Amino acid sequence: MVNKVFRDPLYGYVRVNDEIIDELINSTEFQRLRRIKQLCGVSMVFHMADHTRFSHSLGAYELAREVLEKVIDVKNALNDYEKTVFLCSALLHDVGHGPYSHSFEKIFKISHETMTNNIILGDSHINKILTKYNPNLASDIASVISHKHKFPLIEQLVSSQLDVDRMDYLRRDAYFTGAQFGDIDIEKILRGMLVKNGKILFKYNSVPNIEDYLMSRYHMYYQVYFHPVSRCFEVMLEMIYQRWYELIKSGYQFRTDVSLLIDVIDKKTVDAFLKIDDVYVNGCIQQFQYEKDRILSDLATRLFNRKLFNHIDLKYASDEQVDEIKKLKNNDKYYYKEDVVAKSAYDYQIDEQIKVLIPGDKEVDLLEFSPIVKAFSRSSKYTSKLIYYSEI
Amino acid sequence: MVNKVFRDPLYGYVRVNDEIIDELINSTEFQRLRRIKQLCGVSMVFHMADHTRFSHSLGAYELAREVLEKVIDVKNALNDYEKTVFLCSALLHDVGHGPYSHSFEKIFKISHETMTNNIILGDSHINKILTKYNPNLASDIASVISHKHKFPLIEQLVSSQLDVDRMDYLRRDAYFTGAQFGDIDIEKILRGMLVKNGKILFKYNSVPNIEDYLMSRYHMYYQVYFHPVSRCFEVMLEMIYQRWYELIKSGYQFRTDVSLLIDVIDKKTVDAFLKIDDVYVNGCIQQFQYEKDRILSDLATRLFNRKLFNHIDLKYASDEQVDEIKKLKNNDKYYYKEDVVAKSAYDYQIDEQIKVLIPGDKEVDLLEFSPIVKAFSRSSKYTSKLIYYSEI
Amino acid sequence: MVNKVFRDPLYGYVRVNDEIIDELINSTEFQRLRRIKQLCGVSMVFHMADHTRFSHSLGAYELAREVLEKVIDVKNALNDYEKTVFLCSALLHDVGHGPYSHSFEKIFKISHETMTNNIILGDSHINKILTKYNPNLASDIASVISHKHKFPLIEQLVSSQLDVDRMDYLRRDAYFTGAQFGDIDIEKILRGMLVKNGKILFKYNSVPNIEDYLMSRYHMYYQVYFHPVSRCFEVMLEMIYQRWYELIKSGYQFRTDVSLLIDVIDKKTVDAFLKIDDVYVNGCIQQFQYEKDRILSDLATRLFNRKLFNHIDLKYASDEQVDEIKKLKNNDKYYYKEDVVAKSAYDYQIDEQIKVLIPGDKEVDLLEFSPIVKAFSRSSKYTSKLIYYSEI
Amino acid sequence: MVNKVFRDPLYGYVRVNDEIIDELINSTEFQRLRRIKQLCGVSMVFHMADHTRFSHSLGAYELAREVLEKVIDVKNALNDYEKTVFLCSALLHDVGHGPYSHSFEKIFKISHETMTNNIILGDSHINKILTKYNPNLASDIASVISHKHKFPLIEQLVSSQLDVDRMDYLRRDAYFTGAQFGDIDIEKILRGMLVKNGKILFKYNSVPNIEDYLMSRYHMYYQVYFHPVSRCFEVMLEMIYQRWYELIKSGYQFRTDVSLLIDVIDKKTVDAFLKIDDVYVNGCIQQFQYEKDRILSDLATRLFNRKLFNHIDLKYASDEQVDEIKKLKNNDKYYYKEDVVAKSAYDYQIDEQIKVLIPGDKEVDLLEFSPIVKAFSRSSKYTSKLIYYSEI
Repeated sequence: MVNKVFRDPLYGYVRVNDEIIDELINSTEFQRLRRIKQLCGVSMVFHMADHTRFSHSLGAYELAREVLEKVIDVKNALNDYEKTVFLCSALLHDVGHGPYSHSFEKIFKISHETMTNNIILGDSHINKILTKYNPNLASDIASVISHKHKFPLIEQLVSSQLDVDRMDYLRRDAYFTGAQFGDIDIEKILRGMLVKNGKILFKYNSVPNIEDYLMSRYHMYYQVYFHPVSRCFEVMLEMIYQRWYELIKSGYQFRTDVSLLIDVIDKKTVDAFLKIDDVYVNGCIQQFQYEKDRILSDLATRLFNRKLFNHIDLKYASDEQVDEIKKLKNNDKYYYKEDVVAKSAYDYQIDEQIKVLIPGDKEVDLLEFSPIVKAFSRSSKYTSKLIYYSEI
Repeated sequence: MVNKVFRDPLYGYVRVNDEIIDELINSTEFQRLRRIKQLCGVSMVFHMADHTRFSHSLGAYELAREVLEKVIDVKNALNDYEKTVFLCSALLHDVGHGPYSHSFEKIFKISHETMTNNIILGDSHINKILTKYNPNLASDIASVISHKHKFPLIEQLVSSQLDVDRMDYLRRDAYFTGAQFGDIDIEKILRGMLVKNGKILFKYNSVPNIEDYLMSRYHMYYQVYFHPVSRCFEVMLEMIYQRWYELIKSGYQFRTDVSLLIDVIDKKTVDAFLKIDDVYVNGCIQQFQYEKDRILSDLATRLFNRKLFNHIDLKYASDEQVDEIKKLKNNDKYYYKEDVVAKSAYDYQIDEQIKVLIPGDKEVDLLEFSPIVKAFSRSSKYTSKLIYYSEI
Repeated sequence: MVNKVFRDPLYGYVRVNDEIIDELINSTEFQRLRRIKQLCGVSMVFHMADHTRFSHSLGAYELAREVLEKVIDVKNALNDYEKTVFLCSALLHDVGHGPYSHSFEKIFKISHETMTNNIILGDSHINKILTKYNPNLASDIASVISHKHKFPLIEQLVSSQLDVDRMDYLRRDAYFTGAQFGDIDIEKILRGMLVKNGKILFKYNSVPNIEDYLMSRYHMYYQVYFHPVSRCFEVMLEMIYQRWYELIKSGYQFRTDVSLLIDVIDKKTVDAFLKIDDVYVNGCIQQFQYEKDRILSDLATRLFNRKLFNHIDLKYASDEQVDEIKKLKNNDKYYYKEDVVAKSAYDYQIDEQIKVLIPGDKEVDLLEFSPIVKAFSRSSKYTSKLIYYSEI
Repeated sequence: MVNKVFRDPLYGYVRVNDEIIDELINSTEFQRLRRIKQLCGVSMVFHMADHTRFSHSLGAYELAREVLEKVIDVKNALNDYEKTVFLCSALLHDVGHGPYSHSFEKIFKISHETMTNNIILGDSHINKILTKYNPNLASDIASVISHKHKFPLIEQLVSSQLDVDRMDYLRRDAYFTGAQFGDIDIEKILRGMLVKNGKILFKYNSVPNIEDYLMSRYHMYYQVYFHPVSRCFEVMLEMIYQRWYELIKSGYQFRTDVSLLIDVIDKKTVDAFLKIDDVYVNGCIQQFQYEKDRILSDLATRLFNRKLFNHIDLKYASDEQVDEIKKLKNNDKYYYKEDVVAKSAYDYQIDEQIKVLIPGDKEVDLLEFSPIVKAFSRSSKYTSKLIYYSEI
């Protein structure tokens, strides 16, 4: 047994008691997450939000550990091997993220889920560590992360409407942005957590805290993740990725060494992929300022010096304003972008509704129980429609 | 100019810069608020909630002071005299509260609004201090507190759907109960506050924070103010008041000296009223344990030693359970009580809706702007129906 | 096994898992602590410091519970019975405190240690509960609280230079006064706690946190407990107690019913003592305003309305100032008092020094290890010398 | 007048009211600070400490703004022009820092003070902005930052034993590391701040808070800045810088494009320097993993994957241990390093002691007034002596 801790403002400490967790944290692939920011453009608005996927992954693990310590039903429902599967899945669920992940996936067509799976199952330090402990461990963790329903309870705990992943990142992102949302009462939620017929459900008196969690989620989307300036950064980054990709395809001769990315695009290997991180992409963008291609160098210079695009909000802009911008910029795919993002705090279409246990040992859907959640699921689909464009 | 401070965890400091405020705080009537608890039965559940109306009144004042400092529109809309009216109204708005106020009012038929007015306008230190500064000041403050519409802007700031009173007590009660709600982003709300045509309205981008405030309010009712054990204490206290009152009316010879209360009931004078506070009522209840009247002494002994009644929740109880209790206790007005409490986080019937300013300089109702608030106003009417009864 | 919690801002929750603890908390004698304030005159300065010995006692218990959960050495060193002794001792250590305890003890000559022992060992609910679980439990707990060295390890944990009692009250008092000291890193201190040869010692790398704890302690004395206005309240209360006592002795006929106190003074029984609490004393002082005895009624009126004495600081006052006051007030034992209080954050004379474990498995005294603590123990004896006097 | 804010957990908001501050923040040179981490190796231990000099510089500015708002003496002592000098100096005091600044300066012999001056006075956006407002502004700010004694009061506020720079970074570093030190009571310190004869001094009753600040400083050095793992990162980074420098001097043909650094070393121009930031250095280190030079590639690979050196603490290591390591590694300047760091929380040799105002309008040195500070200045020189070495 090891006895290590990481200081963490959210939990006091992240506590590492198992050797396997210690080894996984020290693996090359996990350490790489120190170089992948959790939030992409958000630090353009919230100047302190420079935290990494490394710290979020530790947090999701710690929360999983606390679930096993504090939620007696879960503790009893899982055997020792399953507990290990749970802890490792929480720790590793984001290991395949690329630099500025969402845009990266979109333009370069490499999904982080696939990559996470490939890292866990493929030729990696992580796979060696897992296999040493148990030959099935790697595939079982991969099965949890890709929702194969082999371990439905663990899947629910790692990834559902209310899981260790979301609970950590909402609080963590709030801490670093300074948003006064997201101070969810985790203790109370865990006190309400039960297992019945192999599924998680919540005592009815913990519903106010779940409502509070959904409210936080809604606000984080509204005010942080979809903040026009955050989005603008991401829109511009996507354009740079787009131009980069096109120039590679067109055989343009880069002044910057972009061979690593070409490797990734061509071969899609784990080995190539793992060399790509924020350090690499930031370094390229810095160099791109001096490229001959006018568009790439212009976009890179803007992004690097935070000379972001303008934006107008379609909800409030007059038709004339919109027309004028469209007339001038419409054809220019690198200097004009209509951006629509939308998110519901609680999606009630899906099967995996949160279940509530009410007195009389009856099980009801959260939606049925809470009129507030009902309102959230319908009305709180926060939709943002903006046009980003370079100055005219 | 004075330069005094009171340490306050919510604001860092309560800052007193005006001599009149300093004098009012030191008045006998205001110091009495040190002996009136802010929350009545709540400390039966939340063992740290022993804070007083004194600290809340200082807090409401400090928030008023910050509004004048930070909200430029308000600063410009009020002249020096009106600023003084505002600060004093915030400070004094609760000065007429009795011990365990809500039950007190109900049983003894003495409203705290009337009493506040009487203290401000009558023969009191407070009245002397106010009149010394300006002969109209007392009546103008009383007019604000009783909503006479002479100073509509100040009335809105002191008492409306979103005012310095509520903003302080939600946060303060949360601090002392340890509830993780109520951490409202006051700064952000104040940044959105505007004055237009002599009325307060809010910039549309501060709406998420107002939604958050309403959510906090909803939760504080649900989990704190209407907590079954808090309510139980209040129900039992009401019964003691009731029995006390009846015994007085019936000419019962008390062992305890209850002359002060008799004075209040008979004469309803400010002078008599001000002698009544938590110290007095607690002292009487302590003595009542040794009264000959069986009901009074039993109720007092129970309350004093926290041997509270049982309760069942009508939402979940079976008909049989309810019937059994009713059969046994129904006729016993001192040992049986059906308690229904309900509260909406946002009441949209009333005139004084919160107004939102959207781009294009248009003014809309908050309800129209925010589907979440709409949901709150309709569905979040938290209703609690319980039966409290002594053990069978 | 029970599974109850009390919401507590310092720990999230106070967790009750053992039936015996649940029963003790519900005992009449323990519930009485709800009516004994933790800090006496401090709320005259820090208007939110109205917390009770009830909440502190729960906190000391919770900290003891966390020690058993988190400090493996302690967990292993104690058997189940000893664990119960530890938890109960932490919970009950203050159960014999009187109203405004320090002055009460001084004037009426009733020590709270003796009273705590008498309650635990005598005819009380608490004694019944303890004895039901184990016939030796009451006497073993009493032995811990009065330092009989039967359970030296538990004694150290409950009462020493660094124990669950002090760690809780420093943090709690800081929370309620709003002082920005006292935010001690308990987790880190517990991580450094070891047991060697049946004694507590601390790993050398937790020393900075112990230094921090001593600094907090020093500051709380300096700025809170010994604040001139806090002390003034206590000085005046002592005078009231003194006058009260003298009038009883002289056969003065009280208008107020003071029979309970007379009982306590005469018989010193547990039964009589338990009827005395803040409610009782406050009620008496309120009544004393209307007594014929001029001194008693004057002091009571002043205290009740916070018309405190003046004070001068002997460190800075000129000889002339001091002489003038002395000339006028010197003979008046009720209106003049020289008050000297002093406290060292760390007392190194005593045997029970904090021990530090350094690499090489060597044990050294904290004083030897930390030059800062050395400085504290010598120089930080905060001494305050003031004269309190009524206006001339 | 502008009215912008930056969300900041430490202050609620950083408030920008002056156009010049807004322009400076948007300048290319200031935006570059987004790409310079505040703490270098610390995030190797405290995984959340990824905050930047950008956020610290905003914080120091905000604190300066609050001093002007809250400290009446300072407000009155400075005219409008001087206020601008103060605010700009606080904002810009770190603008010349390089990537991983301390090692950078040491190896490449480029001081950040000189560079800050050159940026402010030279051909930069910042200089243009300043000069547009007032032709003297740039040189006056430079004079403050390099302590030319033209504005002694402002110099004291920007850089002394207790200034806006230190107060911000102690709190900020504590927030991001999660250290429970550093929660200094800024409000109370500002309330004690006075100006007398053109110099800052502090009221005697704010001394406890200054003691607390010094304690925090001491602890941050002990536990954070000088943490063995933080230091190890810096030691290894210095070795990489050293090897990099030597290889450049020796004419080694880099696979990586290092022309920017060569420019800086050769020309030392502002223009070249500003292109160097964490992005650049991290990118180079990433590439260095693939260099032919065995030492450079090995060090880079270790650092990149957090395979840090071992260390022993000379305070506790036996002579044998030390000898064994020395024998094996002594000659290897890239794999062996004796590291001695020492810091006093309060340096009393220097002229600019903190002055305290005691009753009677007398001025004394803080050292004379506070025995605790005396202890700090002598004994709290925290000294750390370690040997870092690669595994044997």
